[in-house]
Amino acid sequence: MKSVLKIVKTGGKLIEDKARFQEFLKDFSAMEGPKVLVHGGGNFATEVATKLGYETKMLDGRRITDANSMQVITMVYAGLISKNIVAGLQKLGSNAVGLCGADGKSVISRKRPVKEVDYGFVGDIEEINVAFISSLLEQDIIPVFSAISYSEEGEILNTNADSIAAEISKAMSREYETELYYCFEKKGVLADAQDDDSVIEVLDKEKYQELVEKKIISDGMLPKLHNCFQALENGVSTIYLGDSGLLQKNSIHTKIVE
Amino acid sequence: MKSVLKIVKTGGKLIEDKARFQEFLKDFSAMEGPKVLVHGGGNFATEVATKLGYETKMLDGRRITDANSMQVITMVYAGLISKNIVAGLQKLGSNAVGLCGADGKSVISRKRPVKEVDYGFVGDIEEINVAFISSLLEQDIIPVFSAISYSEEGEILNTNADSIAAEISKAMSREYETELYYCFEKKGVLADAQDDDSVIEVLDKEKYQELVEKKIISDGMLPKLHNCFQALENGVSTIYLGDSGLLQKNSIHTKIVE
Repeated sequence: MKSVLKIVKTGGKLIEDKARFQEFLKDFSAMEGPKVLVHGGGNFATEVATKLGYETKMLDGRRITDANSMQVITMVYAGLISKNIVAGLQKLGSNAVGLCGADGKSVISRKRPVKEVDYGFVGDIEEINVAFISSLLEQDIIPVFSAISYSEEGEILNTNADSIAAEISKAMSREYETELYYCFEKKGVLADAQDDDSVIEVLDKEKYQELVEKKIISDGMLPKLHNCFQALENGVSTIYLGDSGLLQKNSIHTKIVE
Repeated sequence: MKSVLKIVKTGGKLIEDKARFQEFLKDFSAMEGPKVLVHGGGNFATEVATKLGYETKMLDGRRITDANSMQVITMVYAGLISKNIVAGLQKLGSNAVGLCGADGKSVISRKRPVKEVDYGFVGDIEEINVAFISSLLEQDIIPVFSAISYSEEGEILNTNADSIAAEISKAMSREYETELYYCFEKKGVLADAQDDDSVIEVLDKEKYQELVEKKIISDGMLPKLHNCFQALENGVSTIYLGDSGLLQKNSIHTKIVE
């Protein structure tokens, strides 16, 4: 039987709240067995970009990553946030290493081709280096990934943290039974967006499609859940969504099953 | 017989010059055998700090690292510069991982005690994690260290890159024959500071002391050379100083021997 590997993705809003993020790190550190952490950068990158006088370019609600933005993302995600998470975990007794996709060629992507829109330095994931990640896990080291991938052309590229977590979970399922945890500011998938306590505790594909048809699942949640079901079809055993209490299974949350 | 491990420290001014730094990476990538790279951040950190509106505090020519400075150093050294070096090496076919001292608890330090001066978030190295560095080298991965260490109190601390290179060289000499390379903008130690071609090709302790007494060796070079001789006494086999041509031994340079 394969041993269980837990892949946890932490959301931006959680990172921004220092006290809650410290709670998150404690819960994460206390999770048993091999694990991986994936993080974005919240609004820190936008804050730093604004202070540096760089304009944040958006198109139809999506960020355009120009060269300046990519510099800021590299500084904030792979530098400031990554290394502070690692130091925080070390202090809690969990050995960790902060990585971006270029490190050990761990997350290889392809720069998104320019069609109607040029998204700039954005990468779509092509390959995960399972051997390298496994070698760290075997040494009881937690790989901590920032939302940056690497293209074979030598570029570091902005890459969605949800996607990195999903692709790592899928790829690692060759060697482990993988569980994917999406931690964010809500308690789970809500049946009523206005009611934080209306958590759907178990969501399968049938129920998901029903909720999509009834337009109960909101815009922001759609791509996340689409990725979840796609991950389940590609080797991931279970997916959980909820706040950081989820990591110790001591809070209500959503469990996604096929 | 132990195999040879090369530890290369690259200077700030070299990093600032894009074309020369690309040459440096090529020369470094072409060096045979296991190797480690240590880098600082040049003036980038000061530039970013200034743009962010943070004042750089100096006392008697030495930088005081306050909380804001430490944030900027973490962003610039461990983020921007580290990850761009790693991407550059990957493109040249050299597998690498960008680390700070907190990663894998690779460089443990103690926050400098406050005596007459409070240097702020500055660490003096206490221990190098030889097992972790060796595990990367055994996988043909180049550890790339930024000038940041980690204290057991959970802090990430600004730490002199020359010292990190020297301490790694000394510690790794338990398992390897270590050669230490200091690459900077000069061709080596100069007999005449005004004449770039007056390189002293071989420098032993006796000659060094003679040059110190004659005040031929300038202020900036003194602590560097002091560290060199201290490293030689603690297991390092040879130390080289020069520009990046040094890495392929195709330029004149200084060799330091006991």
